[in-house]
Amino acid sequence: MTVPITAAAPDAPTAQGPSAADGSAEGPSAPQVLARCRELVRPALAAAVDLLHPWPAEMAAFSLGWCEVGGCPGPGGGGEGKGVRQALTVLCAEAAGAPAESAVAGAVAVELIHTFTLLHDDIMDGDETRRQRPTVWKAYGTGPAVLAGDALFALALETLATAENAHSAAAIRRLTQALRHLVHGQAEDLLFESRPWTGPGAVRLDEYRSMADHKTGALLGCAAALGAQLAGAPSSTVAALAQTGRHLGVAFQTVDDLLGVWGDPEVTGKPVHSDLRRGKKTFPVLAALSSSTPAARRLGELLASPSPLDDAALRDAAALIEEAGGRAAALDEARRHLDLATRSLHSVPLDPAAVGDILALLPFLVSRRM
Amino acid sequence: MTVPITAAAPDAPTAQGPSAADGSAEGPSAPQVLARCRELVRPALAAAVDLLHPWPAEMAAFSLGWCEVGGCPGPGGGGEGKGVRQALTVLCAEAAGAPAESAVAGAVAVELIHTFTLLHDDIMDGDETRRQRPTVWKAYGTGPAVLAGDALFALALETLATAENAHSAAAIRRLTQALRHLVHGQAEDLLFESRPWTGPGAVRLDEYRSMADHKTGALLGCAAALGAQLAGAPSSTVAALAQTGRHLGVAFQTVDDLLGVWGDPEVTGKPVHSDLRRGKKTFPVLAALSSSTPAARRLGELLASPSPLDDAALRDAAALIEEAGGRAAALDEARRHLDLATRSLHSVPLDPAAVGDILALLPFLVSRRM
Repeated sequence: MTVPITAAAPDAPTAQGPSAADGSAEGPSAPQVLARCRELVRPALAAAVDLLHPWPAEMAAFSLGWCEVGGCPGPGGGGEGKGVRQALTVLCAEAAGAPAESAVAGAVAVELIHTFTLLHDDIMDGDETRRQRPTVWKAYGTGPAVLAGDALFALALETLATAENAHSAAAIRRLTQALRHLVHGQAEDLLFESRPWTGPGAVRLDEYRSMADHKTGALLGCAAALGAQLAGAPSSTVAALAQTGRHLGVAFQTVDDLLGVWGDPEVTGKPVHSDLRRGKKTFPVLAALSSSTPAARRLGELLASPSPLDDAALRDAAALIEEAGGRAAALDEARRHLDLATRSLHSVPLDPAAVGDILALLPFLVSRRM
Repeated sequence: MTVPITAAAPDAPTAQGPSAADGSAEGPSAPQVLARCRELVRPALAAAVDLLHPWPAEMAAFSLGWCEVGGCPGPGGGGEGKGVRQALTVLCAEAAGAPAESAVAGAVAVELIHTFTLLHDDIMDGDETRRQRPTVWKAYGTGPAVLAGDALFALALETLATAENAHSAAAIRRLTQALRHLVHGQAEDLLFESRPWTGPGAVRLDEYRSMADHKTGALLGCAAALGAQLAGAPSSTVAALAQTGRHLGVAFQTVDDLLGVWGDPEVTGKPVHSDLRRGKKTFPVLAALSSSTPAARRLGELLASPSPLDDAALRDAAALIEEAGGRAAALDEARRHLDLATRSLHSVPLDPAAVGDILALLPFLVSRRM
């Protein structure tokens, strides 16, 4: 399934603009932008991973798609939407008028932190596959996956701490605060699982929004801010770009929720109705349940079943979520955050070419899986 | 069991000295020194934990001994040898001529990192009890324990990054490097488990020493160095105190290994012969096996048994390790590192009162469990 948000908000800009690097009306496409940033960051990322003990280094390389279990070359790190966080860091440095190179240590740090969160979240969520491959804990064991995550976490901070950049101390402050928010969001998400679907203890939409802002918004916001910060941008610029990243993160999370109900397993690499199957509290379901429609009532009864839902019941649930307006509400939510991301980007003076590249990423990133 | 290393190396100093704070010949005892440092650090440590989401905060407080599962007040954080890392940070700041307060953020950071390593190592090692209480993963589940460890890791770095101290950037560099070494040591330790006791693939004593230096020496060395660094000490002083901490860490690890074979379960909180039961590669066993004695050969045959050793076989193994000189060699190793720690402490000019306090800790810390 492709989530149809390519047009973003009604007033959302497109990737085309007068600022295209080649002087034509057409700027580079999102895959081109991502590939350029990946190529810039890759040597430093590989050099960082090389500092690790060979065993966690292999698990890190496996997780990054660079190798298979045992160390043979892997599928490569160039999945279409991959590397969005590092790209955001690089582009935000350029947007703040600095050369892309100034942001490389920050880009490496956010990519390492992102990989660390995948490793540990997969343990916490019990997820056995990711991108059609076993997760690290499934392939190497839980203990080793915990260790590899810790190694990546430490390496991310070390990379930033040893960067030759006058602003690295401020960048580290921001990254460590983002990490606390990220843990906060993950804690909420895990606790949501044991709360009821309906009644006084049910998860409210505003609680969900706060969780998504912490869990996904914090790291994308930090990725954007680090680029600006390492570029020595004024605090208003750092704040505006942080907001852009944060809204982009929440938009992405909402799209991820849509894919968790209606996503094509071939694309998501997860079973059909994966989030519904696990009873995960996601935006479309919570929005549907809060709709005061007959479909919402029937959905609540279905989800309250003490036994796991079979395939037919899962199909019914997905249909009821759509009937109760949950799918449309989630699409609106994603569009709203894309719009807010764009507005924030336009609220401060920035390099137009870099802004064009960032705008090219926005609709692309929420129209497919990162 | 109390490991009889109270006299440390033949030329090791004692806690008594002309530098005692009260001007008498008697300085404060190790428990008094530890209690003073704990009291100084506790408010900042509690304030840091309060920043966390309540769920990981409770797991952190449980792990620190401040509460039981559910949040009721716990046994307290004042186990006799507890808080050695934070104390070392505080004392090394004083040794470098700075007020103890300058080191509080560093002391909080190392205590949080130590707690993080306990949480994650217990998952990796499958340990179900620690200090006569369930481990965090056993009490709260593996996923939540992974999350709580991550929360403590992030909080440690944030505490140091937001400290109002001109030297905090250098301190963060050192802490992140120590964390990489720590992960390296833990990786080696885990990999040792699947290697044979004898033959070409056996773990050599020099490999063990490198593992212990990384796994335990790195954090104690960092704890000492952070105090000096936050005090603005010259690099020679920082390096000497780092060496002191590092040797102290290795001495402690060696004593821990002795307790893992001969420790009293009442004291260690672990089953009798716990390390032997798990087939852990520890110093006394490796030293015994490398001794070319008839007992070493018999021990090698016993440990090569494909089935787990029963209680009688474990008693035999412990006796053979002693007969082959493994116990004596481990005691010598611990004494040697205590001696090196002391020599390093005396290699640079330091505040004599603080040196007296550090010297009071040395034999105390290896004569019982931290």
